[in-house]
Amino acid sequence: MKPNFSLRLRVFSLNCWGIPYLSKHRADRVKRLGDFLNMESFDLALLQEVWSEQDFQYLRQKLSPTYPAAHYFRSGIIGSGLCVFSKHSIQEITQHIYTLNGYPYMIYHGDWFCGKAVGLLVLHLSGLVLNAYVTHLHAEYNRQKDIYLAHRVAQAWELAQFIHHTSKKADVVLLCGDLNLHPKDLGCRLLKEWTGLHDAYLETRDFKGSEEGCTMVPENCYVSRQELEPFPSGIRIDYVLYKAVSRFYISCKTLKTTIGRDPHSGTPLSDHEALMATLCVRHSPPQQDASPTHGAAERSPLISVLREAWTELDLGMAQAHWWATFAGYVTGVGLLLLVLVCALVAGGGVREIAIMLWAPTVGLVLGAGAVYLFHMQEAKGLCRAQAELHHVLGRARDAQDLGPESQPVPLLGQQEGDRAEEQ
Amino acid sequence: MKPNFSLRLRVFSLNCWGIPYLSKHRADRVKRLGDFLNMESFDLALLQEVWSEQDFQYLRQKLSPTYPAAHYFRSGIIGSGLCVFSKHSIQEITQHIYTLNGYPYMIYHGDWFCGKAVGLLVLHLSGLVLNAYVTHLHAEYNRQKDIYLAHRVAQAWELAQFIHHTSKKADVVLLCGDLNLHPKDLGCRLLKEWTGLHDAYLETRDFKGSEEGCTMVPENCYVSRQELEPFPSGIRIDYVLYKAVSRFYISCKTLKTTIGRDPHSGTPLSDHEALMATLCVRHSPPQQDASPTHGAAERSPLISVLREAWTELDLGMAQAHWWATFAGYVTGVGLLLLVLVCALVAGGGVREIAIMLWAPTVGLVLGAGAVYLFHMQEAKGLCRAQAELHHVLGRARDAQDLGPESQPVPLLGQQEGDRAEEQ
Repeated sequence: MKPNFSLRLRVFSLNCWGIPYLSKHRADRVKRLGDFLNMESFDLALLQEVWSEQDFQYLRQKLSPTYPAAHYFRSGIIGSGLCVFSKHSIQEITQHIYTLNGYPYMIYHGDWFCGKAVGLLVLHLSGLVLNAYVTHLHAEYNRQKDIYLAHRVAQAWELAQFIHHTSKKADVVLLCGDLNLHPKDLGCRLLKEWTGLHDAYLETRDFKGSEEGCTMVPENCYVSRQELEPFPSGIRIDYVLYKAVSRFYISCKTLKTTIGRDPHSGTPLSDHEALMATLCVRHSPPQQDASPTHGAAERSPLISVLREAWTELDLGMAQAHWWATFAGYVTGVGLLLLVLVCALVAGGGVREIAIMLWAPTVGLVLGAGAVYLFHMQEAKGLCRAQAELHHVLGRARDAQDLGPESQPVPLLGQQEGDRAEEQ
Repeated sequence: MKPNFSLRLRVFSLNCWGIPYLSKHRADRVKRLGDFLNMESFDLALLQEVWSEQDFQYLRQKLSPTYPAAHYFRSGIIGSGLCVFSKHSIQEITQHIYTLNGYPYMIYHGDWFCGKAVGLLVLHLSGLVLNAYVTHLHAEYNRQKDIYLAHRVAQAWELAQFIHHTSKKADVVLLCGDLNLHPKDLGCRLLKEWTGLHDAYLETRDFKGSEEGCTMVPENCYVSRQELEPFPSGIRIDYVLYKAVSRFYISCKTLKTTIGRDPHSGTPLSDHEALMATLCVRHSPPQQDASPTHGAAERSPLISVLREAWTELDLGMAQAHWWATFAGYVTGVGLLLLVLVCALVAGGGVREIAIMLWAPTVGLVLGAGAVYLFHMQEAKGLCRAQAELHHVLGRARDAQDLGPESQPVPLLGQQEGDRAEEQ
């Protein structure tokens, strides 16, 4: 690689709002999206909410001359909705499905059925290893009373861990997607602090698009204005995040968003705005290594956000335990009722009523039993994230206490982290 | 690091058979295991089937002077059963839960409820980065008619992918656990081919223990002799696998197994035999890089095993689709019955019978609906693994066709891989 090496990377990210039968003008929007992507010829297009595999296949065929490589990330019952189109050959592909993703009985929210995930592509571009991630976290349906907050924090942590552990040999890391997190939300801070990713919107000097970089704006005809009422300019929940891990330096030359309408015709491509970033990667002088060092001065915000996330997961765990206990009691009551009904049938007393009650009682026992098991699993998932967080917290705290000469972090860090296990 | 650097690593692995209320002499065996681990003072003890968190806490307390670091990997409803005890500080911890893990309605097999997983520990030992993995794959209940084969192959693939993507900066990779795979089984070959891991039993020159390295032997009083009838010496399903990724060379100096009884008293520690390996890591001369190169000559077995796994997953997918279709039809019939029952109730004809039929019909619709959704998700999971396999297969084939000068593998590989998407 030449010392004056420089690589320009044009990236597109969009939550496509492609719910079959429910999303308005889906076919037309997918067609126009294909035309737009073909015309713009990005290096990478990372899409979310392409729920129909037929839509992906349509795009794949349409885009194949410009984007010869493509992948659809399958998961859950419906799918993750994630897919990618790349101008460059994809070296490796894998994915991680989030452990926690809402509740199966919240059928009208539907997230549980999707199997939300993070997809990873490894690309080799002019000798540079690029790890590109695409994701979509659990939706936020009620910001005031968000019952999914603990799940979204756990997802943000799993996403951060997945990036952390799979990108160790990457030169450049790119994450695009709909995080369903506002910039100052706990999950977003946790992700950025633990991975060291930078936000293209905050870093670029050349931004063109919606006010404050919002990706759901009231000007978009598919967006419910009522839902956006507390946010007059809209909300920013879709991101292009990046970092250079090793000998490289990355910057965002330009960032554009659509502004509630198709860049060429009037109707928007989706209910979300698209993000279009031009990134520039070049060699970094040795002293300017842009990779996160998590040095003593940088540990303080990490520790604070880890603590905050730990507390949030703790609240989620208390809630999960409450539901599991409640469902456990209901199952117990159902079993008692079942015994009573069987005794009535055997005794021959009020046989007709007893027979009629039998099936609903069995239903109650099975239903409550399933809810009990589900929340037990939820508690285990939250506890797992909490234990990992606590381990990192312990190490970060000890490293901070002991100063820069503490590399590698000594045993004390482990002992501190280990205390999480005992809680 | 000195050029004559050498590191000795003593590792212990055991499937502990720790099912509360069901496993015989559990408390006594856990106690004796603790005594043994304390006495032997291994560098790492990687345990499986520690289903009760109380057992882990007991061991943790007992072992803390010798093994100050420990972690319990929580997942699913019951848990993954995996835990580790380390003499050295643990730098990082994470885990991956397998997407496919049996069927929830196979309650008496129970694997689905466990949330089988792979746990990862990152350790820094004398400046060397060690990635240690511990896992337990889905059990094999009937070797002649193994309904879980596709799931186990998918798990082996996910395990291989997890190791492949998370160990890129590791110097040494170690995998211990109960794979529920015989050495020549498809899943085992797939794992070894894709990760480049070596089998301690096959590599060591100093083996002491059970015949053919078996880890379930008829001499063990907890093992059902009837189940082992086709295998007179027993079966080898627990492994210590390792590789050195970069400048290092790793070898297995000694490997020992227990032989159906406690190393000190008469009763065995578990129904499985324990594995005890002494590994030696030293600097590798540049020409002796032990990391897998996947060179042209090495690609042929990889291609063949990838093809075989692809076919097995295809069979699994056909089965999953069959079940989903069947459950779909049953749901349809149930819905028709429900309409009929409602009509009967409304018409007032045979009201009593109709009312009695109502609840079982609702049960049928809900039950069959749940089975339908489950198998749809199973098909998605298998299809995901198949697509990843096909991508690797395409790249490996093209690299083989084009010879060693084909690095980096050109676009053609991608196009070939992509065809998997269209199937």
